[in-house]
Amino acid sequence: MNKYSRSELLKIVNAVKHVDPDLESAARAHLDNLTKPLGSLGRLEDLAVKMYVASGGKAPQSDPARIYTIAGDHGVNEENISYFPQEVTRQMVENFLAGGAGINVLARTSGVELMVVDAGCKGGPFPEHPSLIQRRVASGTANISKGPAMDEVSCLRALALGVNLADEAASEGVRVLGTGEMGVSNTTPSTALYCAFFDLDPAEITGPGGGIDSEGVKRKIGVVQRALEVNAETVRTSDPLAILSALGGYEIAALAGLIIGGAKNRQMICIDGFISTAAYAAAAKLCPAVSGYCVLSHASAEPGYSKVLKAIGRRPLLHLDMRLGEGSGAALSMFMLRAAANIYNDMASFDDAGVDAGG
Amino acid sequence: MNKYSRSELLKIVNAVKHVDPDLESAARAHLDNLTKPLGSLGRLEDLAVKMYVASGGKAPQSDPARIYTIAGDHGVNEENISYFPQEVTRQMVENFLAGGAGINVLARTSGVELMVVDAGCKGGPFPEHPSLIQRRVASGTANISKGPAMDEVSCLRALALGVNLADEAASEGVRVLGTGEMGVSNTTPSTALYCAFFDLDPAEITGPGGGIDSEGVKRKIGVVQRALEVNAETVRTSDPLAILSALGGYEIAALAGLIIGGAKNRQMICIDGFISTAAYAAAAKLCPAVSGYCVLSHASAEPGYSKVLKAIGRRPLLHLDMRLGEGSGAALSMFMLRAAANIYNDMASFDDAGVDAGG
Repeated sequence: MNKYSRSELLKIVNAVKHVDPDLESAARAHLDNLTKPLGSLGRLEDLAVKMYVASGGKAPQSDPARIYTIAGDHGVNEENISYFPQEVTRQMVENFLAGGAGINVLARTSGVELMVVDAGCKGGPFPEHPSLIQRRVASGTANISKGPAMDEVSCLRALALGVNLADEAASEGVRVLGTGEMGVSNTTPSTALYCAFFDLDPAEITGPGGGIDSEGVKRKIGVVQRALEVNAETVRTSDPLAILSALGGYEIAALAGLIIGGAKNRQMICIDGFISTAAYAAAAKLCPAVSGYCVLSHASAEPGYSKVLKAIGRRPLLHLDMRLGEGSGAALSMFMLRAAANIYNDMASFDDAGVDAGG
Repeated sequence: MNKYSRSELLKIVNAVKHVDPDLESAARAHLDNLTKPLGSLGRLEDLAVKMYVASGGKAPQSDPARIYTIAGDHGVNEENISYFPQEVTRQMVENFLAGGAGINVLARTSGVELMVVDAGCKGGPFPEHPSLIQRRVASGTANISKGPAMDEVSCLRALALGVNLADEAASEGVRVLGTGEMGVSNTTPSTALYCAFFDLDPAEITGPGGGIDSEGVKRKIGVVQRALEVNAETVRTSDPLAILSALGGYEIAALAGLIIGGAKNRQMICIDGFISTAAYAAAAKLCPAVSGYCVLSHASAEPGYSKVLKAIGRRPLLHLDMRLGEGSGAALSMFMLRAAANIYNDMASFDDAGVDAGG
């Protein structure tokens, strides 16, 4: 695995090209000539346009598509803020590899590949498995309510890991990436990141995550507040790398790297729910140009998510009251990208079909 | 094709069994034991429960799935209320058979079968085609702004056609039906049906359909108002068959029959957008028990649709700003049913996977 310095990360960031909005009109003109009322496929048309623009003006390509579900553990788990015990991170990685988790089922249903990544789990290494990439940066983060989660060097390593995953996928022809994660307690660092990046109030966006009760949510709010206090000096710098190091997690930083790397490669990236969107927020703070390559897959049912969306200024694709993570929403939105690409590529035009264009 | 009398239709309606809500708890218990936070797959879990209950307590089955896109013409077209000329109904049927329309692309993307049905098109018969079912009841309806669209016998024939399609699909093993339609001007009879069934104001729910301008919408409101006035005696009876005959269309009545027939066979039915939902409304007025078998696929972008949903008291699955019809939303929601069924059938339980259930 590469190690990045700040300047090496900056090189990657600078290699991400802002998409060219002038390309949009050509894609719209193509869609407007297909046999349907103007604009009548709504967000599928918007998705096709986004894919066309992101690729630099090529016909949208939705496949092959691959989800990276990246796992990490969190020192803040010791604050008793999670419904599930920390061992569940490892147990769920094993469940992913056995094929029995929600993300396995949804990736199979959508016909997309799933790769599982250990970026920062606790405990010994996992047995080898063809779908498992073991590139752990460290065995879990430190407790963010007592200090920084990671030092900057470790955070840069996790970012580099993500960039490398995107590059490997690109070299294997993968056109669409999906973000997924597993890490017991990881709604807590995600919430802290949102508060730090967007100046949000922990009391307003802290939710039950995997299912803690209202007493637990109160405790979790206090933990996020302490994390912001103890890391206040870092937060005040507004330096996204420093904030990600202080309040993030290994899977979150690796996902931010995956997003930046995917954008560099002009891949589309389907961002999953609450935790993945925190990685997206970090990536967009480090590298605003990523936004042209990213689709917010679904509106997480985590209660703070609507405020987060408002802060980010984006609208997700699906609204299915899901709050599982793992990449589950990304898997479903990848199917929608396929529908959008097929509409763009496979529908007949008015002329070809001999259909009167009306008006 | 069978001809129904009122009493024969009533026999079919009485053969539709209300779903048993007591079955829901068994499906929820199964889902709650799968390796995910409780309820974290949101509406996918609701869909799986609905499928379990609709089938009378069997594991959800999403395939094989088939969309019937049913076409008909409308006498009210002569009132100059449509963006597309009436010939487009026929041209689009030909486009469906050539495989170039939006519904072809989306049915292929979702891996579901598409059958096209002529229930009431104008002009001569179509050339034979393996995907085309030609069972025209009449060559278009009469102008609803001047009198009833159909006589009751013709409407019953269209209903029987739909019931027969559901029965044929069931005999071929089809488990999920999708409703689709094509008929230039058919937002107008659909709007009139909504007004008659739910006492809505034409000015509030009439929209641009295929794309008419604001002057056209004003004209269309007037046409719907006249249709309600000239058929006022029928509307006052609150008799759903009489109202469907007076204000509907052949494709709409056939879709209502498809919905009733599907429910009789305990098939799931994915209801498409604005026009299909009018058929659903008619079916539910004739036979309230159909609701337990139907999924509203997506929120049509036709502006009156939100008021219609409120009147019906149901929430659609997808919100993609689509307003194409043809069964396009049904095709996408059929994929969601597959995802839901696979979650129910293929995920590991906490015990099987050795994952701690938390709490």
